Amino acid sequence: MTRRNGQFSLGAFLLFTGHHVAAWRHPAASDSDTLADFVSFARIAEDAKFDAVFLADGVATRFGEEASAASRKAHNGAYPFEPLTLLSALAGATSRIGLVATASTSYSDPYNLARQFASLDRLSNGRAGWNLVTSGDPKASQNFGHGEDIAHGDRYSRAEEFIDVVTNLWDSWDDRAFLRDRTSGRYFDPAGFRRLDHRGHHFQVQGPLNIPRPPQGHPVVVQAGSSEPGKELAARTAEAVFTAQQTLDDAIAFYADVKGRLAKYGRRPEDIKILPGIFPVVGRTEAEAQEKFEQLQNLITPEVGLDLLSQHAGGLDLSSYPLDGPLPDLPETNAGKSRRELVIALARRENLTIRQLYLRIAGARGHWQLVGTPAQIADQLEERFVNYGADGFNVMAPTLPGGLADFTRLVVPELRRRGLFRTEYEGTTLRDHLGLKRPAASPLPLAAE
Amino acid sequence: MTRRNGQFSLGAFLLFTGHHVAAWRHPAASDSDTLADFVSFARIAEDAKFDAVFLADGVATRFGEEASAASRKAHNGAYPFEPLTLLSALAGATSRIGLVATASTSYSDPYNLARQFASLDRLSNGRAGWNLVTSGDPKASQNFGHGEDIAHGDRYSRAEEFIDVVTNLWDSWDDRAFLRDRTSGRYFDPAGFRRLDHRGHHFQVQGPLNIPRPPQGHPVVVQAGSSEPGKELAARTAEAVFTAQQTLDDAIAFYADVKGRLAKYGRRPEDIKILPGIFPVVGRTEAEAQEKFEQLQNLITPEVGLDLLSQHAGGLDLSSYPLDGPLPDLPETNAGKSRRELVIALARRENLTIRQLYLRIAGARGHWQLVGTPAQIADQLEERFVNYGADGFNVMAPTLPGGLADFTRLVVPELRRRGLFRTEYEGTTLRDHLGLKRPAASPLPLAAE
Repeated sequence: MTRRNGQFSLGAFLLFTGHHVAAWRHPAASDSDTLADFVSFARIAEDAKFDAVFLADGVATRFGEEASAASRKAHNGAYPFEPLTLLSALAGATSRIGLVATASTSYSDPYNLARQFASLDRLSNGRAGWNLVTSGDPKASQNFGHGEDIAHGDRYSRAEEFIDVVTNLWDSWDDRAFLRDRTSGRYFDPAGFRRLDHRGHHFQVQGPLNIPRPPQGHPVVVQAGSSEPGKELAARTAEAVFTAQQTLDDAIAFYADVKGRLAKYGRRPEDIKILPGIFPVVGRTEAEAQEKFEQLQNLITPEVGLDLLSQHAGGLDLSSYPLDGPLPDLPETNAGKSRRELVIALARRENLTIRQLYLRIAGARGHWQLVGTPAQIADQLEERFVNYGADGFNVMAPTLPGGLADFTRLVVPELRRRGLFRTEYEGTTLRDHLGLKRPAASPLPLAAE
Repeated sequence: MTRRNGQFSLGAFLLFTGHHVAAWRHPAASDSDTLADFVSFARIAEDAKFDAVFLADGVATRFGEEASAASRKAHNGAYPFEPLTLLSALAGATSRIGLVATASTSYSDPYNLARQFASLDRLSNGRAGWNLVTSGDPKASQNFGHGEDIAHGDRYSRAEEFIDVVTNLWDSWDDRAFLRDRTSGRYFDPAGFRRLDHRGHHFQVQGPLNIPRPPQGHPVVVQAGSSEPGKELAARTAEAVFTAQQTLDDAIAFYADVKGRLAKYGRRPEDIKILPGIFPVVGRTEAEAQEKFEQLQNLITPEVGLDLLSQHAGGLDLSSYPLDGPLPDLPETNAGKSRRELVIALARRENLTIRQLYLRIAGARGHWQLVGTPAQIADQLEERFVNYGADGFNVMAPTLPGGLADFTRLVVPELRRRGLFRTEYEGTTLRDHLGLKRPAASPLPLAAE
């Protein structure tokens, strides 16, 4: 069965000055990372009528005391801005595009987080989204007083309760509770709010939230979990899911899997949007696209390439072997065994040198890489969409602004010719763009009772 | 000894649509509280070359299940926006004015807070300030899993450690650590950062912060504590102090007290700025100023007036007595005894009716009220400044934008004629405006070691 009608969503995932690991060295990337840069990136996406811009986040650097390889990458865990503050600044510099910030339930508090996202939603007149993540990074936990990492199961138990507290806090006030009736002297309806009196395993929160209900009711809740508890949490509470399937078959299976879990929570398949990430390198000809990609690949230094190879293949240390020689025979280890074997098998099968091997892995950092003409890229996106492998795509431009501008100038018109993407915004909120319904204030009592 | 030279600082304390308790009902106040409103308020202050706008905050409503009186006030503990997100939006809409947000050390985490203020400082090119408060509100603690309030002493112990962790996190990176050297492929200097490895009583934080050092080194640290531990914390760590002395003598004593505490921390008196709040009602004539004030006072409903009287006088419940009759004889209680006796003594001494009594207390909510002509108000500000009772003032306009525009149009030119206030910004950062030095990266080890 294929999908005949409808248009898909597009997000612009803004990460440093590009998603390619060497983007920052490339002339198509900005050589600064100021607010003005991010405003220009967001406006490229808004001019192209994208649904949203999306910001990743983390709460630790990705290196310890030794930072030699990390110091050669932008993608080192340090960010130019914190996402909620940056998106608040972008709220005033844009008018229609959605603004999705990542924030972890592991190292924040539901009252503060509910309030900041509600504030962003009000600042942007209904354009906020929250990408809920849970953190398994030991380095992050060490910035928050946890000697070792919060166990995976506990992370999800905390996330489940966290999201319920946050959504109920957003429902503290009726939509029209703030009357501001100058004549009668009534500022708000004294019957228009409710406390939570939440007493859960992880949180005790009395409420009400001290901010009006967000314009969207709830900012859009986004998740990216692909583990079992992650998919289950998404099926119960998420409205969009970022994902990273490489093949059409995997994408269709993931799509069916997640959407199939919704019914047991009383939700319809259209209540959640599946948005795979794509790493597009666009050229007017296939040769031009390949040349652009090669230019980026050539900027990967051996130290960075070997470091990424080691990360992706369970500590595979090849720094003492010739880069342009074959992969040596290596002793077995237990750490990251399956990924390591996949990498070794790839090198053996295709007879790759060490340099060729890290270039295969390092550039797009494991994401779905599309190098080609506008028609070739549109073909692949259309195929995923019509076969129910995606409801849209999160564009991870190799360079910013260059790679994003390539996509909007070359691929978006092709998508429009095929009727796959909007030519104008139909609505004003992120929910409007994604085709998600606005939640009515949820009836208390809470899920936790 | 009087101060002969120098100019003072001015802040614009933006609270709802005005500081008067009935401001929201007055036509000089905006009838909405959108981002556009706050942008217009901030631009009035920036056009007048104010040092900063300032936002209060709280993390709980000020009412329980019964909200009848609270529902008749804007000042009820619910805010239109959360301050860090609102100031981030204002960062893009302004270019020179400082942006000071209140955040509590009681209900936030040093890593998150350090990061968001560093981000605001980068977004605004060095205009951020943090008004550090500690929270003693039991309603706030109940939104954060604390069954009862954190004790006063513990609040300050936490605050002392919190501020040290935050300032050291801001110093995680050298000022020029992010090299972005495309040719050599070095993104940051691998010797340009340091971990904290902080192991304290309240916090364990490894670091480094995952954001570059803020443009100001540290965002300006503001405090408002007037208790003994509050003044001591300010003397050790604050760079500006908001205060509320009513009389010149009290102001001079407070000023000398705080500045006198700095030497033992190796600081100079000029390292901290004392900024009392002022509630100015400006008229071209004294009669016009009085009429403006009366207009606002007349909008205070009896329910709000009696509620504020009760709050300011330890639970004094007068709702069953005639408003325009005298204060009845009242039984003694222990709750809030001294403030209650002050209020009763005031009513007896001046033979005030109940309505007259609440009007004396409710309007400016206890702040230093200046009702008069531009020359009269300038006289009083000048007197405080030249006698070392203030280094500047935080203007709590009765209405926004009306009352702030009155101040900038009528009082500021008078201050300039007297050489007391700038005609142009001399610098670009909040530190420049306040005359505060930029901190060099502080040498580790940390205070806690």
